[in-house]
Amino acid sequence: MKYLEPHGGNIYRTAERLGIAENNIIDFSASINPLGVPKSVESAIKNDSRYLYNYPDPDATQLRLQIAKYHNIKPESIICGNGSTELIYLVAKALRPKRTLMPAPTFSEYERACRMSYEVRVMSYKLKKENNFDINPDEFISAINRNLPPHPPLIKGGSRGGNMAFLCNPNNPTGRLLKKEDVLKIANAAKRLKCYLIVDEAFIDFLPEHSVMKEVKNNPYLIVLRSMTKFYALSGLRLGYGIFPLKIIRTLQEQKEPWTVNTLAQKAGLAALNDAAYRNKTFKLIPKEKKFMEEGFKKLRIDYIPSSANYYLIRLDNAGRKITSLRKKGILVRDCSNFEGLDGSYIRVAVKSRKDNARLLKEISQCLKA
Amino acid sequence: MKYLEPHGGNIYRTAERLGIAENNIIDFSASINPLGVPKSVESAIKNDSRYLYNYPDPDATQLRLQIAKYHNIKPESIICGNGSTELIYLVAKALRPKRTLMPAPTFSEYERACRMSYEVRVMSYKLKKENNFDINPDEFISAINRNLPPHPPLIKGGSRGGNMAFLCNPNNPTGRLLKKEDVLKIANAAKRLKCYLIVDEAFIDFLPEHSVMKEVKNNPYLIVLRSMTKFYALSGLRLGYGIFPLKIIRTLQEQKEPWTVNTLAQKAGLAALNDAAYRNKTFKLIPKEKKFMEEGFKKLRIDYIPSSANYYLIRLDNAGRKITSLRKKGILVRDCSNFEGLDGSYIRVAVKSRKDNARLLKEISQCLKA
Repeated sequence: MKYLEPHGGNIYRTAERLGIAENNIIDFSASINPLGVPKSVESAIKNDSRYLYNYPDPDATQLRLQIAKYHNIKPESIICGNGSTELIYLVAKALRPKRTLMPAPTFSEYERACRMSYEVRVMSYKLKKENNFDINPDEFISAINRNLPPHPPLIKGGSRGGNMAFLCNPNNPTGRLLKKEDVLKIANAAKRLKCYLIVDEAFIDFLPEHSVMKEVKNNPYLIVLRSMTKFYALSGLRLGYGIFPLKIIRTLQEQKEPWTVNTLAQKAGLAALNDAAYRNKTFKLIPKEKKFMEEGFKKLRIDYIPSSANYYLIRLDNAGRKITSLRKKGILVRDCSNFEGLDGSYIRVAVKSRKDNARLLKEISQCLKA
Repeated sequence: MKYLEPHGGNIYRTAERLGIAENNIIDFSASINPLGVPKSVESAIKNDSRYLYNYPDPDATQLRLQIAKYHNIKPESIICGNGSTELIYLVAKALRPKRTLMPAPTFSEYERACRMSYEVRVMSYKLKKENNFDINPDEFISAINRNLPPHPPLIKGGSRGGNMAFLCNPNNPTGRLLKKEDVLKIANAAKRLKCYLIVDEAFIDFLPEHSVMKEVKNNPYLIVLRSMTKFYALSGLRLGYGIFPLKIIRTLQEQKEPWTVNTLAQKAGLAALNDAAYRNKTFKLIPKEKKFMEEGFKKLRIDYIPSSANYYLIRLDNAGRKITSLRKKGILVRDCSNFEGLDGSYIRVAVKSRKDNARLLKEISQCLKA
């Protein structure tokens, strides 16, 4: 029986299944910065056992102040989470939509969070291969209009039982970007339609100019989620944050579980935000490696989706078999057959170091010949 | 206006409010092992940035195997959590009781988890000072019987909409222990009444012979929660686990958010469970310090509740004023005025090192004279 992880990145399980050491795996299945954990983070969290000993600040006060300063937004509008995943679940739990719309394919946790415990109807806006899986803003607005019948104003007092739409920008697993002006067009329509719009910007650090986080203060229906686990390579520690309209932040805070963001993650976040050198190095590295990978894909005549993020969705015949033979060589890629809206011929690969990327291209090339 | 933290242990906020450094605070408000973080844990988690870089194993496979081996229970019955707090919320969310019963006073997160998003009626079984806040098992069973009308069998298929009772053993904030035979009496009654019984054993490591975790396999209505943040001093990292009946574990797993237990916490848990020397040292230290504190309380004629845990609930006239003057000296105690069932004259203090305990007694003595 084929075993399919619900997400990429489980090197521990893969190592166990393959009977090899974890550090013999090259993991392209999770899209984490190949520069590795910032040195500034490593020094910030080591040698202070009080960070382990004492309870975390449940409000992540210092980190929120730092995030606010970094983005020039209000600290009161920020909630930190155990990865942005916690905030996806928090939004679904606290705002309890009746109906939600999301693109397909997209990150699967939106649907899971909505379906989990509530009577939510989840509707999909299907993305098409022939359009590079791009979202058309006008069509997306029409889909909200068509699928999510308008409700009375929801925001004052109880904010539950309304409509909600999710956007992942750039989208996962396609890497396709909606430009800021297009996201704002959708956000304005959502506001008019009294539909919460959750914009997950987990991979937008590579194109920060397209973030809509600064618009949250003008739109009581707009929520922006950010991750620090990918760009800053803190996946094992877990750290994300959300920017919420002040009108609903109390509702969210009331529903939040305490102490979810461990102290090391809070200290790591502080150090990472201060590390401009790491960011600059990343901004130089990733485009160079993306160029290298795209050239490789072209040379091998591999059908790939041009990406604004640090990963590529690629189409391969007999993808399942190729995934298996790559895995046997310790190369882990993301099997995308469990994404709604994708058939079994897609895989997602992260952009890693030159050495690793070259190895991936070489091994795929061998698979293609076989 | 008096500011009251919902829980103890927020040294970060306290330091900020007092304008002093965090390490100038002596924190008696959270009951964490005074031996500090085990050295074995510190070495296990340092110098491996892969623990930060890669996603955590969402199933905490290795840690579950180790916990299972340590307690001689089945790994399939275990779910690890971001502290046992995550599991309190998971239980409420996944099993969605209609009515719940819990002692008062007790740990406040049971009530919060139940009330949060669901139509749960929360009922209290009031504990009395004249009985040292002890739970009477027969009375507790009667209270279940009286307050939670019986339901049809719930376990197969949907497990929702039933009854649930919480026990914290030893209880927080009183430190009072229910003996194993008494917990089992309640557990058997709960099984007969088809009422889930959640036994939170967050502080039972000091009396492991009273744990009922081994009975979970025989009782499909019994759930046991354990914490590793207190005994092993890992509060900042967050780690707990629960033992669940196999009949419902799937339901719980389906509702669990992914990646909640960070990799360092998983590695720390593995190291801590292997550290018998740390446990033995703790077993020697705590009783000695408890004797010292009890003698101190007696000498000062302080009304304290005899405790089976590493903290004491004590009664002081004008507790609020005393809490404030202690705080000004950098000594943090747990103001218990927000525990249901306690008036404003109670504080909870942890058992710490000899030096710290002596300091606390000295400062309380000064408060009493003032």
